[in-house]
Amino acid sequence: MINATAAPVTDMDAIDRLRAIGREFHGRGWSLGTSSNYSVVVSRDPLELLITVSGKDKSALGRDDFVRVDAAGRPVDGSGRKSSAETLLHCTIAELVPSVGAVLHTHSVWGTILSGAELPRGVSRGRLRIEGFEMLKGLEGIATHDTFEDVPIFANTQDMTELAARIRADFAPLDWSAPGRPPCHGFLLSRHGLYTWGRDLAEARRHIEIFEFLFECVARGRTLPAAGGHAQQQQQQQQQQQQ
Amino acid sequence: MINATAAPVTDMDAIDRLRAIGREFHGRGWSLGTSSNYSVVVSRDPLELLITVSGKDKSALGRDDFVRVDAAGRPVDGSGRKSSAETLLHCTIAELVPSVGAVLHTHSVWGTILSGAELPRGVSRGRLRIEGFEMLKGLEGIATHDTFEDVPIFANTQDMTELAARIRADFAPLDWSAPGRPPCHGFLLSRHGLYTWGRDLAEARRHIEIFEFLFECVARGRTLPAAGGHAQQQQQQQQQQQQ
Amino acid sequence: MINATAAPVTDMDAIDRLRAIGREFHGRGWSLGTSSNYSVVVSRDPLELLITVSGKDKSALGRDDFVRVDAAGRPVDGSGRKSSAETLLHCTIAELVPSVGAVLHTHSVWGTILSGAELPRGVSRGRLRIEGFEMLKGLEGIATHDTFEDVPIFANTQDMTELAARIRADFAPLDWSAPGRPPCHGFLLSRHGLYTWGRDLAEARRHIEIFEFLFECVARGRTLPAAGGHAQQQQQQQQQQQQ
Amino acid sequence: MINATAAPVTDMDAIDRLRAIGREFHGRGWSLGTSSNYSVVVSRDPLELLITVSGKDKSALGRDDFVRVDAAGRPVDGSGRKSSAETLLHCTIAELVPSVGAVLHTHSVWGTILSGAELPRGVSRGRLRIEGFEMLKGLEGIATHDTFEDVPIFANTQDMTELAARIRADFAPLDWSAPGRPPCHGFLLSRHGLYTWGRDLAEARRHIEIFEFLFECVARGRTLPAAGGHAQQQQQQQQQQQQ
Repeated sequence: MINATAAPVTDMDAIDRLRAIGREFHGRGWSLGTSSNYSVVVSRDPLELLITVSGKDKSALGRDDFVRVDAAGRPVDGSGRKSSAETLLHCTIAELVPSVGAVLHTHSVWGTILSGAELPRGVSRGRLRIEGFEMLKGLEGIATHDTFEDVPIFANTQDMTELAARIRADFAPLDWSAPGRPPCHGFLLSRHGLYTWGRDLAEARRHIEIFEFLFECVARGRTLPAAGGHAQQQQQQQQQQQQ
Repeated sequence: MINATAAPVTDMDAIDRLRAIGREFHGRGWSLGTSSNYSVVVSRDPLELLITVSGKDKSALGRDDFVRVDAAGRPVDGSGRKSSAETLLHCTIAELVPSVGAVLHTHSVWGTILSGAELPRGVSRGRLRIEGFEMLKGLEGIATHDTFEDVPIFANTQDMTELAARIRADFAPLDWSAPGRPPCHGFLLSRHGLYTWGRDLAEARRHIEIFEFLFECVARGRTLPAAGGHAQQQQQQQQQQQQ
Repeated sequence: MINATAAPVTDMDAIDRLRAIGREFHGRGWSLGTSSNYSVVVSRDPLELLITVSGKDKSALGRDDFVRVDAAGRPVDGSGRKSSAETLLHCTIAELVPSVGAVLHTHSVWGTILSGAELPRGVSRGRLRIEGFEMLKGLEGIATHDTFEDVPIFANTQDMTELAARIRADFAPLDWSAPGRPPCHGFLLSRHGLYTWGRDLAEARRHIEIFEFLFECVARGRTLPAAGGHAQQQQQQQQQQQQ
Repeated sequence: MINATAAPVTDMDAIDRLRAIGREFHGRGWSLGTSSNYSVVVSRDPLELLITVSGKDKSALGRDDFVRVDAAGRPVDGSGRKSSAETLLHCTIAELVPSVGAVLHTHSVWGTILSGAELPRGVSRGRLRIEGFEMLKGLEGIATHDTFEDVPIFANTQDMTELAARIRADFAPLDWSAPGRPPCHGFLLSRHGLYTWGRDLAEARRHIEIFEFLFECVARGRTLPAAGGHAQQQQQQQQQQQQ
């Protein structure tokens, strides 16, 4: 079984690890249809990524279903293959967050509907606050449950250039080099899905798992009353107001 | 592992791919009991389909559990096997939509209850509107999230001749030959299940996945409040009224 | 892979099929802990059943985890093994329903909470009405969606003798020999689980699948609003009043 | 396949059984990210535990991912490995409950949100009452459904010494040696997860299964109306008031 933890030695190692990610994430309902895209950073100077090609069933990625691109998202491996439509987002993240070794983008039901609930039409930027959960410690640099993570939500678009610019405007002013906890660990595209990353593929995969778990907790928690009948949501609102 | 993507070369290839579909869909909760039926178009002139026989456990289809039928749904392979009770619907779809290479019919919880919610008793035709989701792009010819798909819902019946006529009356006036986005990608039978199709089995399977994901998003989204308490459903209603 | 469809030839065949059922049902969340019990009728005159022993993990049943019992639930194979605590219920069902070849009892979340919702404390008998679903046709003898199945719900107890007598009082007056649709296909024990049966293990397994699917549809359907906001539950109540 | 039922003969047996638990629990959504920790008691006099090391992916535990610790949670095997951050809780449980052979800690969505709903901020101790379910009989020493289990909920913290003291203050006055039903079978850490134990790993695993099933029943049951519209929660409240 492919071990997503070990650092890939070669491009082929990285490819096989990404193929394993695809099978796993499809089985978990996070990469259905031909949705999702995954990349690893294979070179930092110059910046180059290995990324999934466009429109492939992630449960059955072959070794030819990847393409090597430069910082502008242009293929540099002469394969003629068409990289993912969202390649520019991967490149933007890898550029803005110097520690990034892998970027994963998935489409889950909970991420899709939570991001939709938080961002009414006409609003271009929102956030999903996740607080008080022990599982927040699964996000790199977080050492306590007594905190919150504000997950940026960007309104979805088909214009990747425009979206990359919006993400850049949001992320560039933040300090991504400080040791410890980074400004954020991922973002949502409204009614679309989750982008997250990590120093390596194992960390990125862990972040997907943690975020998906937390999304489900937040969503289910909103409609779960306590035994005495007080809605959890009311409690959360009171707690947020005390922040 | 059977690759549902490659075009079947022989009837036996098609059979083995459909058997793999059965195992997969049963495991995913979409083909429980002896429900569901699957077909591939094996000849266009004359129109002939290979379809699952009636009343079989889809998790354990054998190579003998298929029958070849003509455009009227009559067996033409001399096997004496009884084709699916809904054979006529597969034939009707294959006839009305000239690009169809495969038709898949499944029974999921979300599809069953959503179609029931939208179609009160006594109403023979309704629709389920799915809009604003990136995953709509998994339906062939849709290139943006900023659109909607109206999934026709037909009241269920045991009279397949009558139902086929209703579907024909609905579909025949539409332009299925225009390039790009087709009039629709599937329909629901109320409190029964989903019919979808594709140019080949891979596309039909992808459409099942996409529709099931979207059904779950629509259903769960209706009762998910935003953090501030405004029901998503209210937002959707406002958005629909602006349409 | 064990084929649950073929009629068992020997007791060992039956045992291996029941072990496969256990692995499958545990994986599907219906036989967790050491819950559940399964039997096949191995003799009709005299009536003898092969049944799971008490207190075993159903995901790992060994060949020694079964015992042969008579119509009174007493072991007759000299093994010294202790049969399931609910053996008497299996024997009662097998006796009252002459066509029974297998009896399966499972514990699912949906069956547990639906039966609890329908039967407040102090009420000893209720019913869960399931109507209008195409999947009802997965229950033997039902040929249309345009019908309903009233699933009896018996208040739970630890006194199997008393419970068997209650079931007998309920079932004995009914005509189980008429061809076609039987009086019912299963019953629920409140906040406990589902009992169902079939002419053979394949039919009993199909009935478990169908009931579990329908329980989930009923439960989820009760809180699913239509797009326009009218609760499905209100529609169902109106429909039931018109019955 | 590793049989979690047989008593481990050697430390390596115990390790392989815990690795199997990790794969299973990760697949079931109870040990995602690098959450959870598992231990077995390998010596009673002096008390020594074999426990998972800190920060490992439970789906891929290697044989080196365990460490042997003493009653104070200090490593005694000279490996230099860092044991789980929550080691002290395992040691405390093993010390207070003399029959304990294994302790399992998991993070599930239902346990996380139920414990959060029951324990508003600022409250350090609560309980989750689970009553009337047949599945309660899966907890050791419980022989009837007609009872309830109050699962203690402790407010979460990062200070394990303080938490261990709180658990000790709660558990030490109770009689853990009486035969039959113990004072409780597990506890929840609010918005964190479940701790449970057993005489051996099989019993601890069974307790995790039973608790997770019951958590799901309690949570889903709170928002499931009866067919006639009376919320189950109202019924439960009436029943609890009669206690």
